Parts: sequence; structure tokens; C-alpha cells
Amino acid sequence: MSKIITISREFSSGGREIGKRLADELDIAYYDKEIVGEISKRTGLTKEYIEKFSEKSMTRVYPYAFRASFYTYTNSVVEEVHKIQAEVIRKLATQGDCVVVGRCSDYILREFDPFKVYVYSSNEKDKISRCENNSELTNEKDIIKQIHHIDKERAKYYYSYTGQKRGEVKNYNLLIDTSVVSIKTAVKLIATAVMEKD
Amino acid sequence: MSKIITISREFSSGGREIGKRLADELDIAYYDKEIVGEISKRTGLTKEYIEKFSEKSMTRVYPYAFRASFYTYTNSVVEEVHKIQAEVIRKLATQGDCVVVGRCSDYILREFDPFKVYVYSSNEKDKISRCENNSELTNEKDIIKQIHHIDKERAKYYYSYTGQKRGEVKNYNLLIDTSVVSIKTAVKLIATAVMEKD
Repeated sequence: MSKIITISREFSSGGREIGKRLADELDIAYYDKEIVGEISKRTGLTKEYIEKFSEKSMTRVYPYAFRASFYTYTNSVVEEVHKIQAEVIRKLATQGDCVVVGRCSDYILREFDPFKVYVYSSNEKDKISRCENNSELTNEKDIIKQIHHIDKERAKYYYSYTGQKRGEVKNYNLLIDTSVVSIKTAVKLIATAVMEKD
Repeated sequence: MSKIITISREFSSGGREIGKRLADELDIAYYDKEIVGEISKRTGLTKEYIEKFSEKSMTRVYPYAFRASFYTYTNSVVEEVHKIQAEVIRKLATQGDCVVVGRCSDYILREFDPFKVYVYSSNEKDKISRCENNSELTNEKDIIKQIHHIDKERAKYYYSYTGQKRGEVKNYNLLIDTSVVSIKTAVKLIATAVMEKD
């Protein structure tokens, strides 16, 4: 049976680390930043620019004439990035077993019948302390603001792209709270579930 | 570390079977029908009567005078059953490690810091076929009606008792889709997560 695993995650909940370790554990491919590199190659846009939009919904198209051209242009670029991103993710999945992190991959790969994981933290303090270790921000207030902002953007993007609510139970097969389950154990749980899947 | 595990579940998703097998696997107590028996002893109400209300919210108190006395009486009995149920569940938890199924036990036992599991089926067909095996109903339409009715009642009861939304990710530590993860594997995942918890 094919092993295609998608990991959706709340910001700063350890989802990326779980994805990497899981791919190592199962000895299969891991796709995250590679997706951005491939989009960059195909579009000529810089990786930094793509990263800004790869998990964000389109900006609002303002009805003001003097702004219309700029926003329409921005939206069409973002739309194109999302379209190519979906193509890249689908192409990677056809190459064999893999772990894909974020980017609505659970929805994009729905025809591949992936094992869909959602990683979150029930205790915000854990997200803050994880963010402190991985961010240039040092002020707790700023960190909380960043966590909320990024999660809000991702949820908006997920909804606009899939029509589904991010983090809603029925959209996933296994949901793990990294405030209580360690990263190491989470990897073991997912690996067990995937290996024992019919 | 103490092992108190609460299992909340969608109707006909296999939660009760998971709870029983998990208690066997971990060699700890399992509480489900025992709770009803204890409430019956304390109140003098029959088990059948208690079961009708133990996972239901109170009936509406109609503002009609001629019905008021009946409904007020019913509500006070239901309220009393829920109060005693919470006492019984807390008392059982103080006796040692255990698995408790349903009855808002995740909320009732919050001071015990339980490991909170939610069991559901992403595919309704699985719930229907499980229900066919365990119910007297044979007509699929009736079975679907029953599943929706019981789930709606439980969700209402959970909300009225806890002020929380049933099945909302942040209220649990591990959520398992039994349409994709087998009962046997689900037991293994929960046991691993509990044994490896700090």
C-alpha cells in the first residue's frame, strides 16, 4: 500500500519537525521547502516571494480604480503560485511514498487517499516557547501576535482553497496535541497508524 | 504517573470497544455501565431510566402552566442524575488508574489531568455498518436517523454541561478516525501515548 502522509499543523506546534522525523523513520521522501524551490524554478519568482504567498489566501481586490491594476496583478500572481504549487505537490506524490507538510496538501492530494494528520498544541505556552527558540522575536507579546497572525492567515487560505474549515476533525485521520504528546511519540503514533493501515 | 483516560466518541464509531480493550491492554479499570449501576443504587431510579438521561441535556421547560409541574420535575431529576454521575465518576477516578467512556468525563475529571481521547468516523458508512451489527434496526434510513439523533443529543448535552463544543480539537489530546485506523491500532496508539507521557 502506498504511504502518502500529509501533515497540517498549527503554527509553532512542531508539525514540521514531526514531518521530517517521520519521513526518516519510514525512509520515504519529505517535501516542504522543496516545493518552494520547484515553484521558483517554474515561475522565475524568488523563493522568498513565493514563501510569502504559498500559505496565504489572495489579497483583497479593492474596488478603487487607482488601486485595481496593482491588486489584480498581485492576485493573479498569487493564484498562479497556488496553481503551480498544487501541480508540483501532485507530481511529487506520483513519484512515490512521501510526507508533505502544509499547503492544503491534504486537499490537493485527496485522490491519492493520503493519511491525513493534524498537529496542534492545546496549551499556547508551548507554542510560545517553541517560537522563542526558532524566531528572532524575543518579546512575548510580539510572539503571541505572530502566532495568531500566521494561524489566521493559514486558516483563511485553507478555507478559501478547500471550502473546508482548518482543524475540523472530520477532515483528518489522526489529530495530535503536542502539548501532551511528545514529538518523538507523535512520530511513533503516525508511523504505527500508517504501517498498520489496511 | 497516574493513567486516567477519558474516551469521548461519536455514536457507533467504536469508542466503547476501544475503551474496553485499552483498559485490558493497560490492565486498569474500565468504567461505563458501572457508572449507571452506581447512580441507580444511590437514587433508586432504574438503570433503564438513568440511561435515557445520562448523556442527554435537560428537556425544555415549557412555559405553559399546565405542563410546568411535569417538566420541572423531569428537569430536576435529570439534573440530579447528572450531579450524582459527576460525583460517581470523580470517586471512581480517585480509586486509581482507569478508562472512562463518555458522560462528559473529560470535563468532569479535568482536575485529574486525564489523557483525553476523541473517537470518530470520517465515513458515515462505517458508522452505519457498525450500527447494523449492534442494533435492532435493519432499515438504513432508520439507522442514519438514529445515529444523527444520538450524536445531536450527546453534543447538546456536552455543550450544556461543559460550555464547550463536542469534537473541537483543542478539548482533546488525541483524536482518532476509526474509518481509517482500526480498533486494534487505535488501542495501540492510545496505550503508547499514555505510557510515554511524561
